[in-house]
Amino acid sequence: MSLTLTAARRIIEVAMQTGRQAGWKPLSVVVLDAGGHVLSFDRPDGASPGRFEIARAKAYGAVMLGMGGSAQMARAEAQAYFMAAVNGVFGGQVLPVPGGVLVRGAEGTVIGAVGVTGDTSDNDAAAASAGIRAAGFVAEA
Amino acid sequence: MSLTLTAARRIIEVAMQTGRQAGWKPLSVVVLDAGGHVLSFDRPDGASPGRFEIARAKAYGAVMLGMGGSAQMARAEAQAYFMAAVNGVFGGQVLPVPGGVLVRGAEGTVIGAVGVTGDTSDNDAAAASAGIRAAGFVAEA
Amino acid sequence: MSLTLTAARRIIEVAMQTGRQAGWKPLSVVVLDAGGHVLSFDRPDGASPGRFEIARAKAYGAVMLGMGGSAQMARAEAQAYFMAAVNGVFGGQVLPVPGGVLVRGAEGTVIGAVGVTGDTSDNDAAAASAGIRAAGFVAEA
Amino acid sequence: MSLTLTAARRIIEVAMQTGRQAGWKPLSVVVLDAGGHVLSFDRPDGASPGRFEIARAKAYGAVMLGMGGSAQMARAEAQAYFMAAVNGVFGGQVLPVPGGVLVRGAEGTVIGAVGVTGDTSDNDAAAASAGIRAAGFVAEA
Repeated sequence: MSLTLTAARRIIEVAMQTGRQAGWKPLSVVVLDAGGHVLSFDRPDGASPGRFEIARAKAYGAVMLGMGGSAQMARAEAQAYFMAAVNGVFGGQVLPVPGGVLVRGAEGTVIGAVGVTGDTSDNDAAAASAGIRAAGFVAEA
Repeated sequence: MSLTLTAARRIIEVAMQTGRQAGWKPLSVVVLDAGGHVLSFDRPDGASPGRFEIARAKAYGAVMLGMGGSAQMARAEAQAYFMAAVNGVFGGQVLPVPGGVLVRGAEGTVIGAVGVTGDTSDNDAAAASAGIRAAGFVAEA
Repeated sequence: MSLTLTAARRIIEVAMQTGRQAGWKPLSVVVLDAGGHVLSFDRPDGASPGRFEIARAKAYGAVMLGMGGSAQMARAEAQAYFMAAVNGVFGGQVLPVPGGVLVRGAEGTVIGAVGVTGDTSDNDAAAASAGIRAAGFVAEA
Repeated sequence: MSLTLTAARRIIEVAMQTGRQAGWKPLSVVVLDAGGHVLSFDRPDGASPGRFEIARAKAYGAVMLGMGGSAQMARAEAQAYFMAAVNGVFGGQVLPVPGGVLVRGAEGTVIGAVGVTGDTSDNDAAAASAGIRAAGFVAEA
């Protein structure tokens, strides 16, 4: 099982809608496949120009480490030098905060990750999870 | 005038549709803003995993140099060391072949670029231009 | 369908054996998954220390570009600046010569790639293909 | 004396088996030679895609600094900026936690290092040490 573009677009649509309905700042959303490669991305009008890099780094860390952004943040707070070193290993492309959310398929396998950025990290993660669930998958924040 | 997400999605939709109707291989499409930053991207099912990087490098060179991919290719063929050095300047993120197409607004200003990859470079460029025109802008391949 | 470690070990075993039986120099062999990430690798006694990087770069380019090393070499010979620029896009991790071979599953999808280095590029590619076929997959050199 | 591929395979086999028998999460295992270069690696089914990079960074730091991961961690906790700076010196490829274990031969010389990742850092180190001892060498965690 792998993420289709149709599923990725559904995730992005619902994640952005979740933010708009809640009155949050504009959310940028990326969907990566199980290898950490970009499937789809949208940056809404008014978002700052670096949102793609931030969204991708949240999702990329989730895929490569097999853990969501909240778990990464807990590790970074407990052992800062560990997450700093992990980041060196992955070329500085890991952002260990909520908003990077693993996508698990029916049988529990990781089939990709979603990265959301724009509002608070917790709201970003909530929007990502809403999108993932709407597309029929299990979200691990 | 700047590219909205709505316009970017229209460009991607028409560029991908152009390829499907012509029976080309699956096309991946990125839209960058006037600063070379990602607005939107789609990679269709069955495309190889590195398509985002290729599409972005086609469009990024167009924005940063202010010239379309076809013009960049002519320069690379006439003076290979020049484009190699330009690439050093821009961190290796410039791919000087057709498929990177500038987007010009009503008054002629560059408001972004589109990068398409998947079929031959010339077909990639044709799909990008079709998308740009469908969104009401002028394409410079 | 994805490559298991058992299949990867079978590919490596047969590829190395192919070289030994033919009297070639010691072959180093890497197997990557469909996202370009390392599954398994062996470097035999007497091989030079940089063999992992070479094997991986052959296989990595195959996965990311969706084309085998022989096709990449043809492109590099026809249009040197193109493959040089592609390499910049992928962080200099692409080695466009025979020995990087795509692994296709039953339904034709790319499920990984094998990189072999140690003898001539053509012999490297032949050993990779022998390993892939022995594991029940289709090799695209 | 140097590590042979046969010894490296024995180390990997026993390290992975140690984890399976103890019911730990799937362990990925790399073996580096005395120059820090990859000899052999296996990533089991179900492990996250970035395991090679993590395993290698654990082992690479051990070889380059001549100290095991546990000693590196003690230093990182006492003097975080020192290990951060060391990482700059080695291109960000050092992960200073347990699981990177030096391999010493009969006469005490360092002949390589093993990196294990997948379960807790302490379990990773225990599996590495078990593999090294099974192959007839002395482990320095």
